[in-house]
Amino acid sequence: MGEVKVIGSSKSLFCARVEWALKLKGVEYEYLEEDLLNKSPLLLKHNPVHKKVPVLVHDDKPIAESLFILEYIDERWKNYPLLPEDPYERAMARFWAKFADEKCVMGAFAAFRKEGEEREKAIESALESFTFVEKQIQGKKFFSGDDNIGYLDLVMGWIPLWLNAMEEAGGMKLMDAQKFPSLHEWTQNFVEIPLIKECLPPRDALVNYFNLSLSYIRSMAAAKQ
Amino acid sequence: MGEVKVIGSSKSLFCARVEWALKLKGVEYEYLEEDLLNKSPLLLKHNPVHKKVPVLVHDDKPIAESLFILEYIDERWKNYPLLPEDPYERAMARFWAKFADEKCVMGAFAAFRKEGEEREKAIESALESFTFVEKQIQGKKFFSGDDNIGYLDLVMGWIPLWLNAMEEAGGMKLMDAQKFPSLHEWTQNFVEIPLIKECLPPRDALVNYFNLSLSYIRSMAAAKQ
Repeated sequence: MGEVKVIGSSKSLFCARVEWALKLKGVEYEYLEEDLLNKSPLLLKHNPVHKKVPVLVHDDKPIAESLFILEYIDERWKNYPLLPEDPYERAMARFWAKFADEKCVMGAFAAFRKEGEEREKAIESALESFTFVEKQIQGKKFFSGDDNIGYLDLVMGWIPLWLNAMEEAGGMKLMDAQKFPSLHEWTQNFVEIPLIKECLPPRDALVNYFNLSLSYIRSMAAAKQ
Repeated sequence: MGEVKVIGSSKSLFCARVEWALKLKGVEYEYLEEDLLNKSPLLLKHNPVHKKVPVLVHDDKPIAESLFILEYIDERWKNYPLLPEDPYERAMARFWAKFADEKCVMGAFAAFRKEGEEREKAIESALESFTFVEKQIQGKKFFSGDDNIGYLDLVMGWIPLWLNAMEEAGGMKLMDAQKFPSLHEWTQNFVEIPLIKECLPPRDALVNYFNLSLSYIRSMAAAKQ
C-alpha cells in the first residue's frame, strides 16, 4: 500500500489521533518528530498552507488537517472502520468532531492562556461546550456507540491526558467528574485500551511542555505592554 | 427516500450550496425560509448548538454545517457524485473546502466589516488566501477536475455573486480578473450552468442586504464607543 510517514509532534493532541488510527488499522508508518520552534523544510514543503503538524505522507502525497487525515485513513484502509457506516451517523460524528475541536480544544486553550475576568469567561464557555459533549456520551461506553472505539473517540482522545496536563499547568479545572460523570467514565474506559495507553506521552513531559508554553505566552504578553 | 426539508435563508451563501446539491441530485425538498432576526422554534429545535442555517432535515433527523450536509447528500443519494471517488482527491477536496470557508469567506467578511488600517490588513490576508485557491483552479474548467461541477465548485459557489455583492456594499475589490485570471474564468463557467443560474438570488437584493448589514455593524460599533 506504499510508504506511510507521519510528520508530527509528541506534544500535539492532533497528532496522537492520527497515530492511534494507523495503529488501530495495523498500518506500518515512519514517524518524523518535528521541532515546532524550528520547522523542517519537509513540513514546509508538505503543508505550505498552514505549516502545522500532523501531516500524513502516503506515497509522497501529503495530507494535512487531522480530521481529514482520519477520514483518509478510514477510506484507504478498510479494516477496523473508524467512522460509522450509516450516512446520518457519519454526519453526526463529523459534526461533533468539528464541535469538539473548535469549541472544546480551542475553549480549553483559551481558558489556559487567559487571565482574570477573561479566563473566567473562557472557562464558562468551555464548560458549556463540554456539557454538549457530555450529552453525547451519556449511556454509552464509547462515542462510537459500541464496544470498539471509533473516529469520535480518537478525536476526543486528548481529554484524559492533554486536558489534564493543561489543567495542572494552567491551575484550572474543566473536566470535573461531578459535572461530567459520563465523560469522566469515558476517559477511564478510553485510556484502559492497551493500544491507546501504550502510545500516550509521559504526563510529566506534557505538564512541563504546557508550563513552558504558558511562561512563553506570559512573557510575550508582558513584552507587548 | 423520506421527506427532505431545508431550513435556510435566501441571503446565506452557506444555504445556496445545499440547495444546489439537492437540485443536482434531483432530490425533491421543501424549503423553509428562516427570519434570522427572529429565529423560529423549528431552527432552535433542530440546531440547538449553533442556531444557524442551513439545516437539512431528512425524515425528521436534522443535520447542521453545510459541508457535512453536502457529504450527507452525497452519501445518501449516489447519483451525480459530488466528491471525487479517490480517497486522496477526497481529502484534498475537504482540505480546500475548509480552507475556503475559514480563510476566503471569513477573510472577505472581515475585510467587508472592518475599517481603516484593520481593513487593509484584512484585504491583504484575504487576497493571500485567494492566491492559494487560484492555484487550485489553474488549468481546469471546474474544481472537480472534469466537465461537471462537484463538491468544491459548490463550496466556492459564493464567489461569483455573494462576494461581488459584498464588494459593492463594502466599497472594496478582492476578486480582480487580473490578479486571479483562472478563478475569474471559473466564476464565469460556474454561473453559466443553467441549474446554478436559476437559483441565484437577485443581485440587488443581496447588495441591499449587505448594505443593511454594514449599517447595522457600524451602528453597533458606534454605540459601543
